[in-house]
Amino acid sequence: MSEFSSSFGGSDAARALHDDSIVIDGLVIAKWQRELFEDMRKGGLTAANCTVSVWEGFQATVNNIVKSNQLIAESSDLVCVARTAADIRAAKAAGKTGIIYGFQNANAYEDQIGYVDVFKQLGVGIVQMCYNTQNLVGTGCYERDGGLSGFGREMVAEMNRVGVMCDLSHVGSKTSEEVILESKVPVCYSHCAPAGLKDHPRNKSDAELRFIAEHGGFVGVTMFTPFLKAGVNATVDDYVEAIEYVMNLVGEDAIGIGTDFTQGHGQDFFEWLTHDKGYARRLTNFGKIVNPEGIRTIGEFPNLTEALLRRGMSEHQVRKIMGENWLRTLENVWGG
Amino acid sequence: MSEFSSSFGGSDAARALHDDSIVIDGLVIAKWQRELFEDMRKGGLTAANCTVSVWEGFQATVNNIVKSNQLIAESSDLVCVARTAADIRAAKAAGKTGIIYGFQNANAYEDQIGYVDVFKQLGVGIVQMCYNTQNLVGTGCYERDGGLSGFGREMVAEMNRVGVMCDLSHVGSKTSEEVILESKVPVCYSHCAPAGLKDHPRNKSDAELRFIAEHGGFVGVTMFTPFLKAGVNATVDDYVEAIEYVMNLVGEDAIGIGTDFTQGHGQDFFEWLTHDKGYARRLTNFGKIVNPEGIRTIGEFPNLTEALLRRGMSEHQVRKIMGENWLRTLENVWGG
Repeated sequence: MSEFSSSFGGSDAARALHDDSIVIDGLVIAKWQRELFEDMRKGGLTAANCTVSVWEGFQATVNNIVKSNQLIAESSDLVCVARTAADIRAAKAAGKTGIIYGFQNANAYEDQIGYVDVFKQLGVGIVQMCYNTQNLVGTGCYERDGGLSGFGREMVAEMNRVGVMCDLSHVGSKTSEEVILESKVPVCYSHCAPAGLKDHPRNKSDAELRFIAEHGGFVGVTMFTPFLKAGVNATVDDYVEAIEYVMNLVGEDAIGIGTDFTQGHGQDFFEWLTHDKGYARRLTNFGKIVNPEGIRTIGEFPNLTEALLRRGMSEHQVRKIMGENWLRTLENVWGG
Repeated sequence: MSEFSSSFGGSDAARALHDDSIVIDGLVIAKWQRELFEDMRKGGLTAANCTVSVWEGFQATVNNIVKSNQLIAESSDLVCVARTAADIRAAKAAGKTGIIYGFQNANAYEDQIGYVDVFKQLGVGIVQMCYNTQNLVGTGCYERDGGLSGFGREMVAEMNRVGVMCDLSHVGSKTSEEVILESKVPVCYSHCAPAGLKDHPRNKSDAELRFIAEHGGFVGVTMFTPFLKAGVNATVDDYVEAIEYVMNLVGEDAIGIGTDFTQGHGQDFFEWLTHDKGYARRLTNFGKIVNPEGIRTIGEFPNLTEALLRRGMSEHQVRKIMGENWLRTLENVWGG
């Protein structure tokens, strides 16, 4: 047993706080199956932004959504689709987890601005503008970034209008800056770690984190161990260190959780993720993928609340970090 | 009657030279119909790079090719599909015009490198990397250009391998430069005009024209009047002025014709061309579209040979400009 598992049993107050809190995970890309939903309930998740598209085009993404809808319907005792802030609150009241459909790549919009509304009607409320490389909108963080395209500016305007949050986690620095300036509503890094603790192409500098916050944006902090100072040896406390580091830059109202849980997937999935378009040149190689000790699975989510308290954060701060900030921000972007 | 029509009748030698020459038009985007093929025969065209894709994706482009194949089959007395230099020579011998299928945008390749070979098998031998705006490969000439993407570099390698010529006419300056450096075989501006005679985002500077030639590339000169010094008042002699200007920069072996004939199309087609993706923001507005007097239609092509001779060019030079250079270069790129 890890120290976290063992210490968890001793912290009824932390567990009580966790159970009472709105808990939102800003990025989950785990395997879609009932076991995932069971673990979400075990972890006390109120809602999660779950990826339904990375490299896929329009129709393959619709097919993913069809399958996800089916899985959710079959597990309606555990989960429901969350399209609005009210849906998330209703999920909390019903003891279920609300599934927000999200893209990690605007590629599924292809060249059709009208698809923003089509997918919004299908439940897609958060869309990352680029995934690692260049698309029609801009460029990802794993290659030279020429910035937001003219078509990308039209996309931002349409996402603003329809109520889809722009996510910039895997987006290049220049494109990110220009989306932040272009958008009329808050945008986010749904899942990122601070470069101030570990230098990595996917991590965000202090300046970038301040910039998004100064422009009303939001930062979800990831625990993906290749991005943390301690690497594969990280524990939930190292994750909390990263959260605190970001909070000190963006303030306690613009911060939340975005774990990047990938549980249930095999090596083939990571090969697909780490090659451009899912098959072309290799972009990165993370080696062994293991989450921080204490929060290796979604079911261990309560350990995060406990670790935040152990760090000395107030109950009020913990509630904000764990989900209240996300909920308020999503409501702001999505409308009432 | 224009001076060209009237002078034409008086120049049997020019007509004889034209009829004997290999005449290749590096860019035709006219309406696909039998009337076009009849005019190509009237104009004495040996071959033409005819656009089968601009904004279309994969499947819509395949559908365009299916329709084009049908039209060509129905007019097999006039035209044939040209996939090789041998096909072009056979067309000349048979008194037909060889139709080279070309894209004005790599968009039809979508995100699949394997589609380069698929379309090559369907007859597509020349592909413009970008059309006016950003795509997965790079960026066009009507917006800020971040250069050739990593995926674009993979595309160039595959086009080299398969034998598809990279066209850069509507491509941005930075992406063009990087494709020129990346490609192992000649690339082209299939249809461009010199910025030295008229400043325009679509025109190429002296430095750009020299650069492509210094790297073994090829330049087809367009007569699209918005790009010529004389504008809508241009005559075939203004077109020849542009040809001569480019020839003085790139040399008489790297130059050819790329008219950009659009005959048969209505305003709706130009609206489609001049908006991003065919429907999004407007990129440009050419106003009245009229070709230079003396070469308003493809059928008037012989007047171009006559005008080149009138300019003082030798028969040898005229043969090269009118098609021999194109044929040699295409054979170089396509293989034997």
